Amino acid sequence: MSTSRRTFIAAAATVAVSKAVPNTGASTVVTTYPMLVHHVFFWLKNPESKEDLARLLAGLRTLTKIETVRGAHFGVPASTEKREVVDNSYSASEILFFDDAAGQKVYQDHVIHKKFVADCSHLWERVIVYDAVSA
Amino acid sequence: MSTSRRTFIAAAATVAVSKAVPNTGASTVVTTYPMLVHHVFFWLKNPESKEDLARLLAGLRTLTKIETVRGAHFGVPASTEKREVVDNSYSASEILFFDDAAGQKVYQDHVIHKKFVADCSHLWERVIVYDAVSA
Repeated sequence: MSTSRRTFIAAAATVAVSKAVPNTGASTVVTTYPMLVHHVFFWLKNPESKEDLARLLAGLRTLTKIETVRGAHFGVPASTEKREVVDNSYSASEILFFDDAAGQKVYQDHVIHKKFVADCSHLWERVIVYDAVSA
Repeated sequence: MSTSRRTFIAAAATVAVSKAVPNTGASTVVTTYPMLVHHVFFWLKNPESKEDLARLLAGLRTLTKIETVRGAHFGVPASTEKREVVDNSYSASEILFFDDAAGQKVYQDHVIHKKFVADCSHLWERVIVYDAVSA
């Protein structure tokens, strides 16, 4: 972990939770995030295709260039404990943070987002979006 | 926004994306997050009950005391554009970041998490968990 750990200055809004990081050289951790979270889960048409997954993930990474995107996490199902409530059937996950709904709207209408949809939407058979605002 | 904006030192792993923040005094933004994301969506039995939502959110906030939790965002459905792929039927959303699956396991087995489930699980009728690892 230590080699992939970075320390940097961060600025964001709301939901402040700060704590010490045990067992690392770092003294604090990112726990303050922007207001609006755009969660997206994708199910590929060809879930066994590593190429299709790579293309989807490459497409997702282009979205971070959109100026209102304040943070991003792209993932695949984790090998956590299997439980009835855990859905690990999806192919890829996307989290984008925005300051507010206006920022999310800029993203939604942005040419980079439209290009991502045009280039990659044939890869997935199902998508679920959950937009959440800090509470 | 400016009054709720904070600048702080942050340390986290992977998915580094850094950019300027336009129209604010801040020079950079949080865009680096830990490896493992635990997404949870809750549907309350009484979705109209503000009291039940407040109890659930209060319970969720206790989870940030668990030592392996590296970040948290708790939300409710945002009033973003209504589209077919958007599920805004849930009552509350939870994001917890962990360094790895071991950190998530500590959380899962933690007394604070068990107390949250014991105190709050009667409030919800449905829960979906998506655990994702950085890709």
